[in-house]
Amino acid sequence: MSKYNIDTVLKVRLRHAPGQLARLAQAIAEEDGVIGDITTVKVQDRWSERDITVETMNDAHTTRLVARVGALDGIEVLAVKDRVFEAHQGGKLHSTSRIELRQLADLRYIYTPGVARVARAIEKDPSLAWELTGLGSSVAICTNGTRVLGLGDIGPVASLPVMEGKAVLYDKFVGLSATPILIDEKDPEKFVETVVRISRGFGGIHLEDIRVPDCFAIEDALKKRLDKPVMHDDQHGTATAALAAILNACKLTGIELRRAKLGQIGLGAAGSAIARLALTYGVGEVLVTDPNPAAVAWLESLGARGTNLATLLASADIVVATTGKPGLITKQMVRPRQVIFALSNPDPEIDPDDALAAGAAFAGDGRAINNALAFPSLFRAALDLRSRAIAPEMLVAAAEAIAAQADAGEIVPSPLKPGVHEAVTLAVAARARELGLAGTARV
Amino acid sequence: MSKYNIDTVLKVRLRHAPGQLARLAQAIAEEDGVIGDITTVKVQDRWSERDITVETMNDAHTTRLVARVGALDGIEVLAVKDRVFEAHQGGKLHSTSRIELRQLADLRYIYTPGVARVARAIEKDPSLAWELTGLGSSVAICTNGTRVLGLGDIGPVASLPVMEGKAVLYDKFVGLSATPILIDEKDPEKFVETVVRISRGFGGIHLEDIRVPDCFAIEDALKKRLDKPVMHDDQHGTATAALAAILNACKLTGIELRRAKLGQIGLGAAGSAIARLALTYGVGEVLVTDPNPAAVAWLESLGARGTNLATLLASADIVVATTGKPGLITKQMVRPRQVIFALSNPDPEIDPDDALAAGAAFAGDGRAINNALAFPSLFRAALDLRSRAIAPEMLVAAAEAIAAQADAGEIVPSPLKPGVHEAVTLAVAARARELGLAGTARV
Repeated sequence: MSKYNIDTVLKVRLRHAPGQLARLAQAIAEEDGVIGDITTVKVQDRWSERDITVETMNDAHTTRLVARVGALDGIEVLAVKDRVFEAHQGGKLHSTSRIELRQLADLRYIYTPGVARVARAIEKDPSLAWELTGLGSSVAICTNGTRVLGLGDIGPVASLPVMEGKAVLYDKFVGLSATPILIDEKDPEKFVETVVRISRGFGGIHLEDIRVPDCFAIEDALKKRLDKPVMHDDQHGTATAALAAILNACKLTGIELRRAKLGQIGLGAAGSAIARLALTYGVGEVLVTDPNPAAVAWLESLGARGTNLATLLASADIVVATTGKPGLITKQMVRPRQVIFALSNPDPEIDPDDALAAGAAFAGDGRAINNALAFPSLFRAALDLRSRAIAPEMLVAAAEAIAAQADAGEIVPSPLKPGVHEAVTLAVAARARELGLAGTARV
Repeated sequence: MSKYNIDTVLKVRLRHAPGQLARLAQAIAEEDGVIGDITTVKVQDRWSERDITVETMNDAHTTRLVARVGALDGIEVLAVKDRVFEAHQGGKLHSTSRIELRQLADLRYIYTPGVARVARAIEKDPSLAWELTGLGSSVAICTNGTRVLGLGDIGPVASLPVMEGKAVLYDKFVGLSATPILIDEKDPEKFVETVVRISRGFGGIHLEDIRVPDCFAIEDALKKRLDKPVMHDDQHGTATAALAAILNACKLTGIELRRAKLGQIGLGAAGSAIARLALTYGVGEVLVTDPNPAAVAWLESLGARGTNLATLLASADIVVATTGKPGLITKQMVRPRQVIFALSNPDPEIDPDDALAAGAAFAGDGRAINNALAFPSLFRAALDLRSRAIAPEMLVAAAEAIAAQADAGEIVPSPLKPGVHEAVTLAVAARARELGLAGTARV
C-alpha cells in the first residue's frame, strides 16, 4: 500500500438509487484506485452528493481515474480536491496570543506601559525570561533546505511545509511552540553564525534537513557555542526511532541486543547516528560499512568495526541499511534468522517480503521508523529540565520508552497513541536528571 | 493618572459585615492607592475573600500600601499578585497548529509522505508558497534590543516581552502570525545580513527597538535587498499614529494642515519619521530642529526647513516634540492657538495642562500616540496585496483612516474599537493598489 500516496476527494453527484455507488466503486477499482472515506454531503429527491476519498499512486493515475468516473453515465464529478493540498491551504501554523484582550487594561498589562516592568526585571535577572516569556517552551526548527526528505536540495522556501509539519507535531504532541527558521545560506560557518545570532529567542535548536557532511560540523559547532539543547533530527531523532524499532524486533525474535552484532550499512546522517547510538546503548558489536573511508574511520574511532558489505551481512544479527540504494541487498545475502531494517525511502534496500522469504526473522522498511515519536519528547524533556543538552543517554532512554509503548506484536507505537509522548518525555527527563543536566541551560 | 503604572491584586480575607470594605478602601486611599476592580472570591458565614485591584506608582508604594492593609485589625492579606507579571507567566505567544490530528491519515497529509508533494510543488513554482504555507500571513519582528521603549539598550532577551506583546497585537487585531526574532548583534551590517538570511520564511519584516542611527541604515539596506515589506515601527508606525492624532487635532481646532506650519523638535527615529510623513502628506511647511546638524541636513534635503527651537515655537501652528527632554518647552514659549504634541515618555516636554493654560488650542502627550493602531493594519494590507513595500503614501492612508475612526471629540480611536483595524487595512490596501504595488512581493 505504500505506493498509494495521494488521497484525492472526488465530489460527485449521482442518482440516489440502488447500484449507483456500486457502479462507481467498480469503476474506481478497475482503474486501480483504493476507496477511503465516503461522506454524503447532500441528499435530494433523486440525487445525492458524496465526497469520495480515493487513494492513487501519482498525479497521472488520479487524472486517469477522474476521467473514468466522469465518463460514467449519470455520475457527475463536481470537484476534485487533493487532501494534502487542501490541508496546506494558508499554512499549518499560526503564532497565537495566549492572552485575551477584553479591555484597555489588558493592553496596558501586556503592551506599554506594563511590559516595561517585565523587560526591566529580565534585564536585571535574565533567568526570569524562563517564566516571563515563551523562551522555556520554544524551539527553532532551523534548516537551509539542502537535503529535504528524499527530495535533495530544494532550497529553504520549498522546505517550509516540512518545517511547519514538524512544528505542528511539537504543538500537538508535547505542547511546545516551534518556529520554522529558513536560513538561506549553504556555507556551514555562516549557517552556524546565523543560528547563534538568532538563538537567544528560543529554548532549543532543532536542526533539520541539512546535507551531509555539513550537518555534522554544524551540529558540533552549535553544541559547543550554545548553552541550550541542539539536535539534528535527521541524525538523532531517526536513530532514536530506529533503536526503538530494533529493541522491539529483538524482543520479537529473541535476540539479546547487548550480546548481538549490529551491522550498519551506510554512514550518512541517519546511518552514522544509528551506529553511534547502538554504541551508546551497548550493542555487543557494531559493524559498519560505507564507500567513504572517512566515515568508517570516524565510527571506528568511536568503537565500531569497519568491514565490507558481504562480511557485514554474513555476520550481523541485526542489519540496518540507510544507503539510498534500492535493491542493494539481494535475497541471497540474507542470513537466516537475521533482523533486517532496510530504511531507504521510498524504495528499500530489500523488500521486507523478500527478506522474510529468504529466511529473515524480521524485516522492516522506512515505515517502521517514525521520528515523530522521538523529537517532540526529547525537546520537551530537555526544556522542562532546562538541560543544556540532549545527551546520547537521553536518546537511549527515549528509545526504550518508545519501545515499551508498543502494543504486543507492534514494532513501534502509533504517535497518536494516548500517553505515548508523556511516557517518553518522563523517561527522558528522568535520565537527564540522573546525568546531572537539570538546570544547566542558560538564557 | 499616568503615574499609576502598577496594578496589584490584593487577595484579602475580611469580616463579612457592614463597614469592613469601607475601612479597607479608606486605608488604601490614605496610602494614595487607586482602587480598581473588586471581586468576591469566596463568602463564608462570617468571612469573605476578595481580590482587590489597586493601582500604585512604584514597587515601594505597593509595599507600603500592602503593609498598611495588612496591619488593619480583622483584615488579612492572603496574597499579593502583580497583574502584569501574572499576565506574562509562560509567555504571551504560542506557535499553534492550524490542523487537527485525529487519525493517522491526518498525519500522512501534513507530515511524510504527503508533505513531500507540497514541497516539490513549491520547488517547481515558488509562488505556491503564498497559499500552501504560512508565508503570506507571517511577520518577523526583528530586534537587537538596543533601544527598547524608554529603557535603552537592555539587550535582546530582556526585549522579548515587548516583541511578544507586538505579536499578540498582530494576532488579535489583524490575524497575522508574528514571530519575535531576537538578533544578538549590534553591528548594523551583520544585523542586516542576519535578517536577510532568515527572511525567506516570513512575509514581512517588522523592525523594532533598534537604536539611532543604526535603525536608519538597517531599514534602508533591508528595503533595498528584500522584495517584501520592511518597516521600522519606531519610525513609521509612530509617525502614522502621530499623523492621525495631528489630523484630528487640526480638525478640532480648525487648522487646515495643508496650509499650516508644522514644527518637529527632535529628529530621532520617531521625530524624523514624523517630519518625513508630514512632507509626504503635504503639510504647508515643515520646520525641524535638532542638536545634530546631519539630521537637520537630511530633513532639509527632503524639503523641510531647519531652524532653532525659539523660531520654531514662535512660528509653527502645530508643534511636535520627541526629544526625551522633560520640560524643554516652557509656558512662555507657547504661542496662543498652537497645537502641541509633547510626546516624550514618561515625562513630556511640556505638561498638556500647562500648555493649555498658556493658550494652546490643543495639547497632548505620548498617550495620544498609539502604534497599535498602525503597524498591524499596515502589514496586513501589504501582505494581503502581496506588496513589496509599505510606501509612505500607505502610511498617510492609514493615518487618515485611523483619524476617521475616532469618535467625536477623540484624538484617536481605541485600538479595541470594533472594526477599526479592518477599516485601516482596507484604506491602506486601496492606496497600495492605486500605487501599483499589488503583487510586487516575491517569495
